Amino acid sequence: MSKQTVYTLGELSALLEVELRGDPTLQIDGLATLKNATVGKLSFLSNPRYVHQLASTQASAVIINSAFSDSCSCAQLLTSNPYVSYAKASQLFAPERADEPGVHPTASVHPSAVLAPQVSIGPHAVIAAGVTIGARTRIGAGCSIGARSSIGEDCTLFANVSVYHDVLIGDRAVLHSSVVIGADGFGFAFDGKQSIKIAQLGGVQIGSDVEIGAGSTIDRGALDDTIIEHGVKIDNHVQIAHNCIIGEHTIICGCSAIAGSTTIGRYCTIGGGVGVIGHLHIADKVMISAMSLVSQSISEPGVYSSGTGLLESKEWKRNIVRFRQLDDMAKRLKELEKLTLGK
Amino acid sequence: MSKQTVYTLGELSALLEVELRGDPTLQIDGLATLKNATVGKLSFLSNPRYVHQLASTQASAVIINSAFSDSCSCAQLLTSNPYVSYAKASQLFAPERADEPGVHPTASVHPSAVLAPQVSIGPHAVIAAGVTIGARTRIGAGCSIGARSSIGEDCTLFANVSVYHDVLIGDRAVLHSSVVIGADGFGFAFDGKQSIKIAQLGGVQIGSDVEIGAGSTIDRGALDDTIIEHGVKIDNHVQIAHNCIIGEHTIICGCSAIAGSTTIGRYCTIGGGVGVIGHLHIADKVMISAMSLVSQSISEPGVYSSGTGLLESKEWKRNIVRFRQLDDMAKRLKELEKLTLGK
Amino acid sequence: MSKQTVYTLGELSALLEVELRGDPTLQIDGLATLKNATVGKLSFLSNPRYVHQLASTQASAVIINSAFSDSCSCAQLLTSNPYVSYAKASQLFAPERADEPGVHPTASVHPSAVLAPQVSIGPHAVIAAGVTIGARTRIGAGCSIGARSSIGEDCTLFANVSVYHDVLIGDRAVLHSSVVIGADGFGFAFDGKQSIKIAQLGGVQIGSDVEIGAGSTIDRGALDDTIIEHGVKIDNHVQIAHNCIIGEHTIICGCSAIAGSTTIGRYCTIGGGVGVIGHLHIADKVMISAMSLVSQSISEPGVYSSGTGLLESKEWKRNIVRFRQLDDMAKRLKELEKLTLGK
Repeated sequence: MSKQTVYTLGELSALLEVELRGDPTLQIDGLATLKNATVGKLSFLSNPRYVHQLASTQASAVIINSAFSDSCSCAQLLTSNPYVSYAKASQLFAPERADEPGVHPTASVHPSAVLAPQVSIGPHAVIAAGVTIGARTRIGAGCSIGARSSIGEDCTLFANVSVYHDVLIGDRAVLHSSVVIGADGFGFAFDGKQSIKIAQLGGVQIGSDVEIGAGSTIDRGALDDTIIEHGVKIDNHVQIAHNCIIGEHTIICGCSAIAGSTTIGRYCTIGGGVGVIGHLHIADKVMISAMSLVSQSISEPGVYSSGTGLLESKEWKRNIVRFRQLDDMAKRLKELEKLTLGK
Repeated sequence: MSKQTVYTLGELSALLEVELRGDPTLQIDGLATLKNATVGKLSFLSNPRYVHQLASTQASAVIINSAFSDSCSCAQLLTSNPYVSYAKASQLFAPERADEPGVHPTASVHPSAVLAPQVSIGPHAVIAAGVTIGARTRIGAGCSIGARSSIGEDCTLFANVSVYHDVLIGDRAVLHSSVVIGADGFGFAFDGKQSIKIAQLGGVQIGSDVEIGAGSTIDRGALDDTIIEHGVKIDNHVQIAHNCIIGEHTIICGCSAIAGSTTIGRYCTIGGGVGVIGHLHIADKVMISAMSLVSQSISEPGVYSSGTGLLESKEWKRNIVRFRQLDDMAKRLKELEKLTLGK
Repeated sequence: MSKQTVYTLGELSALLEVELRGDPTLQIDGLATLKNATVGKLSFLSNPRYVHQLASTQASAVIINSAFSDSCSCAQLLTSNPYVSYAKASQLFAPERADEPGVHPTASVHPSAVLAPQVSIGPHAVIAAGVTIGARTRIGAGCSIGARSSIGEDCTLFANVSVYHDVLIGDRAVLHSSVVIGADGFGFAFDGKQSIKIAQLGGVQIGSDVEIGAGSTIDRGALDDTIIEHGVKIDNHVQIAHNCIIGEHTIICGCSAIAGSTTIGRYCTIGGGVGVIGHLHIADKVMISAMSLVSQSISEPGVYSSGTGLLESKEWKRNIVRFRQLDDMAKRLKELEKLTLGK
């Protein structure tokens, strides 16, 4: 059952539930940017900055807001949110994944594991005792699923994902290569001479519609579980420490790290390279800009930042010297004000 | 031989070497926080902030400092360091790992490799020529151990760990999934046109009682070895570059990176997301706060930080503009002082 | 065919194309630093800071600039760039990798894959449909190569590398363990309630002579390809997001992240832990210092930095408080200047 790779504009209009302005029999065989599109391609205008590209695009059709309709001489798919319609169209043109249903003969599946219909288990994958895998879920080559873990329906685990024991993952999850779910949280008690390991007895619960980028890690809880709620999207190289709770539909960009027992609200956007220290509480709809350090709880929605901004190094060094004198400067300024203003 | 999952309070008192106040026949089947404990659970009070939870906890017993003994109506295990006793108790309740001794039929073990008694080699693991594995060590599914490497006794390597050739690892090491030990250090010589690779001829030496978190990487040395001393604990996503030396019992939190040839002392705590540049020397008992950049050697124990702290972005932008004017401001302040104070 | 492990000085002089001052029959069996060298070792002096070590080194010969020749009493290999000659020498002494040509019996190779002569496919590696592997390339244990991807000649993929579908990699590439090439770029369209996945329909193109460190990730493009040009060297834990273009011979140090659609020029040096936000354009020959955040395009070559520098935490806290008052301080300074200077 191979996937459709060419659609008529009429079919696309119906599938995307958007209004068509143009010839419904026109054949579309792929997506492209306005700049690089050739005949037969569907493009989109989401950012008004690119509106000038409409005049010269070779695209056969464009997903567009009706406000810009007049700037465009080719066929149009009209929608109030072209970026969302483009996202839906991209899924129509995504190549079928190669993995066929069934257990590859080189995979190791424990006899007590329960595999739902149409599950695909790739070469050299390892499914431990008591694991449950939902219908149509695909486990990539070299993945390892630990004892008693459960993975929902329609999930995709790419090659070399490691899921430890007692991890629960919902439906439609996408886990990219080298992801590690359920490794021990980083917990030690120092006895004055050495660090005594605190066994991490909790698990991990991951909701439905969660995507986790390549190399990201979500540690298991110390006593209670680490929790990733529905619809959370996590980019590459992200670290979620033990007992964090990440609220529904929050987005965490690449290389960010959330330290232990921190709760992040719903619909937050955590920029790339952000650090959030442990035991904090971040409200819903908070945005953190790239490479900020969040060192205190945030109770109000809004945009938050830290850092100094980039300078040419010579200039930066001059200012850095002054940063070290800043408290002194503030006191001297106060002193001058006293003398000059009498306050 | 399955592991004990229920203990009497009397047994726990003996195993943890702490004083019991309460009924020694009481059965304990797990650990829980004060807040979430139910009947049959053992809890602990380490942080005095939670002392108010003693009144309402459903725990059957609590590990506690005798100073707080009176606030607690349930059975007690009295100890001067409840956090350490909790750590030891957590190990008693840790689930038995599934891997049984023996070489899984799908593993590839080179005939010249030497496996001590009760070693477990998981499915699809690869053990190269000349490797030595100590007694009771468990090599997880899909791990790869390179030529001539040696792993001590009672180690645990979780799934998909990669150990290159000529790496020495001591006893009781724990390496989590996607860890990479002994990849090439990042060394190139620029000839004016391109970068010529410097073959990394050194190895890696890791002491005993070292834990390394998921996805962390420790590169092999250029000529001499990279060295991780006894008792070092490394969290997830940490990068240790070639020829670093990390002193005994130092703790490195998640997403930190130590650049090449830097030496870090004993009993240091490196916070999360910290960067330490190359060729530095950090003294014993230094603490670095999260996301600091260490750009110079540190000769005295103490706590060190960098960064600006988090602000609401509007406020941050106003101050960032001034940061760029800081050197100018300092000069103008000096000028005013001359005029006003005559100095 | 085992590799040569001992060379005469005469052979080394010829192989490295440098002038020999000393006995050409002298046997050299390895490389070492000036400080740790023993008899039979070849050392090098690159950094003049170590010139004093020449007097006491036990090395049998030294790679050295003729300017320092008189400070050295042992045999010499004279060159204008000792660091480059040392790099070349290091390759001569690198141990032969163990993998022999051929497909390991446990590997899974799709019948439609095309393997050139002398390719080595390691244990449990998986080669999907339509893959092409160039001559003498070695695919390590547990690697997964996705459908239709192509890997050039003389490449080395260490254990547990994941290459997705439709990825092109040139000749002489080195990919270290846990590298992930071609995972989905992080693209979602928010429809007001949830994030709709944008299928990542582009691929990844990697030029020749590229090295990619352990655990690094390079995402596939949304529509066009992500591109890594010839000679780029990437350290561990680096994240390259979708549709980035990294120019020839640029070096990216560990734990740096380049956000989506950013173009970086040729011969740049991106320090460790750097973040570059998306949709920027960085000129050729730009250097970014460690842990800087690049938040705007850079059109001129030069060195750029951000951050505050490290302070003892007590002092840092005093200055951080003032950082928050910086805009206020600047205004008060201006006011005083008006009063005092009448400007």
